[in-house]
Amino acid sequence: MNRYTIANIPGDGIGREVLPAGVQVLSAVAQRCGFALEFRDFDWSCETYLATGKMMPDDGLTRLADHDAIFLGAVGYPGVPDHVSLWGLLLPIRREFDQYVNLRPVRLLPGIRSPLRDKSTGDIDFWVVRENSEGEYSQIGGRTGTGEDEIVIQQAVFTRRGTDRILRYAFDFARKLGRPHVTSATKSNGLYHSMPFWDERFAAIGAEYPGIATDQYHIDILAARFVMSPERFDVVVGSNLFGDILSDLGPGVTGTIAVAPSANLNPSRRYPSMFEPVHGSAPDIAGQGIANPIGQIWSGAMMLDHLGEAEAAAMVLAAIEAVLRDRQAVLTPDLGGNGSTAVLTRQILEKLQGR
Amino acid sequence: MNRYTIANIPGDGIGREVLPAGVQVLSAVAQRCGFALEFRDFDWSCETYLATGKMMPDDGLTRLADHDAIFLGAVGYPGVPDHVSLWGLLLPIRREFDQYVNLRPVRLLPGIRSPLRDKSTGDIDFWVVRENSEGEYSQIGGRTGTGEDEIVIQQAVFTRRGTDRILRYAFDFARKLGRPHVTSATKSNGLYHSMPFWDERFAAIGAEYPGIATDQYHIDILAARFVMSPERFDVVVGSNLFGDILSDLGPGVTGTIAVAPSANLNPSRRYPSMFEPVHGSAPDIAGQGIANPIGQIWSGAMMLDHLGEAEAAAMVLAAIEAVLRDRQAVLTPDLGGNGSTAVLTRQILEKLQGR
Ligand SMILES: CC(C)[C@H](C(=O)O)[C@@H](O)C(=O)O
Ligand SMILES: CC(C)[C@H](C(=O)O)[C@@H](O)C(=O)O
Repeated sequence: MNRYTIANIPGDGIGREVLPAGVQVLSAVAQRCGFALEFRDFDWSCETYLATGKMMPDDGLTRLADHDAIFLGAVGYPGVPDHVSLWGLLLPIRREFDQYVNLRPVRLLPGIRSPLRDKSTGDIDFWVVRENSEGEYSQIGGRTGTGEDEIVIQQAVFTRRGTDRILRYAFDFARKLGRPHVTSATKSNGLYHSMPFWDERFAAIGAEYPGIATDQYHIDILAARFVMSPERFDVVVGSNLFGDILSDLGPGVTGTIAVAPSANLNPSRRYPSMFEPVHGSAPDIAGQGIANPIGQIWSGAMMLDHLGEAEAAAMVLAAIEAVLRDRQAVLTPDLGGNGSTAVLTRQILEKLQGR
Repeated sequence: MNRYTIANIPGDGIGREVLPAGVQVLSAVAQRCGFALEFRDFDWSCETYLATGKMMPDDGLTRLADHDAIFLGAVGYPGVPDHVSLWGLLLPIRREFDQYVNLRPVRLLPGIRSPLRDKSTGDIDFWVVRENSEGEYSQIGGRTGTGEDEIVIQQAVFTRRGTDRILRYAFDFARKLGRPHVTSATKSNGLYHSMPFWDERFAAIGAEYPGIATDQYHIDILAARFVMSPERFDVVVGSNLFGDILSDLGPGVTGTIAVAPSANLNPSRRYPSMFEPVHGSAPDIAGQGIANPIGQIWSGAMMLDHLGEAEAAAMVLAAIEAVLRDRQAVLTPDLGGNGSTAVLTRQILEKLQGR
């Protein structure tokens, strides 16, 4: 029997509510499909920070390293500045474990109403491949001068290695999907050094894949096109920042961020990959038991897929879709229902068991 | 009689087609309202670059300096890399003339169909105030290393002076509009130095305006909210890059980028301000005479407003709206019609003359 050890990091806010829902569903599908998931809990969060001054212990990364995957809820909470909490937990995991791909589907699920007119299930269905290890997210820079004369420098670093590998991933992924079309997000008209380089590499790597069509848009117009013609896209590749923006905008266009999943992948498999919903810790609704668990559960499905349990992954996604298609289903408030996290999770479990 | 000298820069592609339309309409309204506009043409473009190696002559900025305003079409064309054309013409004008405010309305005009469900005229109506002189748009940085080892640095520079003045502009503008609510675009969870600084200054400047409500969102979720709840916004302030993205996404949400205008303002009036449509040079339709002139004409209205001719500005906007409301109007292909630039312009002129 295949056995996988998973490091759970519920984190903050609704992360603590949706992560257990994900664990429940994954445990159920593992049992059905005959593999074992051993979950170990790592209670690292902004609370930890307030108590200890650190988001995770000094040997935190080492302790995570010998897991097959990391399953994360959400990081960040009022009271701890965001750059402190994120650079203290989420971002070091992405970097140290070289999870250089952030993969996010943008898909209009059945039963969910897109804010766009005339769009229904199937019309919006593409992937954002985001560079996840370098680029604009950088701690290089700082402040100098005082008072009125203060200036702040923020440095972005693009390496050829880092750029080429994410572009290649995007092309390989498009090929694997059978959707041979890759769109690049750029801003080479404004960002003088980084984006002309990005464009150059996109052209060079694209030339290695003659069967795959390419196009590129500046990020400003690309964002507008996500709204005006989302059906055009297949695989969209972007830098860390542009990928971040597009992979929230995409779920916005499909009606809700609450259901969107993400995978932080180390394709070499030398280190664990990490799976987390796109939504954050949502302090405004935390503690009420009404958070939508679908983003977490779908992230769990992506984790199963990554672990090689493709059939189980497909079953989880099918169960989510079955609930959303079911007009009798009781959904969470973000989807217009009055159900709790527990109630929605239970229905997904039931569909999984064929009930 | 008030007299204004305007520097026309048609630029590239459809810029050469819509700028004359703008001039026609502005001339007509000037005549009606009893002021004089003297237009002088500056034929600087990518063609100039291909012929001379420069987007504009060495004394270009000096030649523009003694105009009351600059009226620009679009810059950029295939054959000249975007960072060359833009940093050779558009961006130096913004910087040298200290046009530190880029002001762009996001408004759903009558007769235009938003891609969003359930949204009609009046539902979407807010302003993006974009920092226009510093930040992420910077020529600082470069490449080092060769081949596989190449790395590229792109540096963003935020000054306290530059940050404070755009934030103050946004608050003053919200007060002047009578819509006391300013939203800040940030990304302080990822961009370690620049955005925590931006947030600090937003809080500090906000405290100077106790009557104005504030909120802030990370750019990723803010982009999603532009789609999910655009009716929430009044004045949105962002850095150069974030403002750029939001002010294309906004027009995308209101159905078309072709009609969106922008003002590059030097509020001190020491240097000329510049007015240009949000759309670019659109090589795909250039030369066909079918470009929508409304973005250019509306930019002209913003120019009149800036020059102090508020009544004339309002008349131009009213004429645009009257055409769009008129079910008999013949619109350009981007708005679903089969009219030319000339035909749409003529109808706006007719409405202006009360016909
Ligand atoms: C052409 C480009 C450099 C420019 C910008 O990014 O500022 C344009 O997108 C704009 O918004 O005016
Ligand atoms: C929380 C934040 C640092 C993070 C990011 O920007 O990467 C989040 O928005 C995401 O997309 O995973």
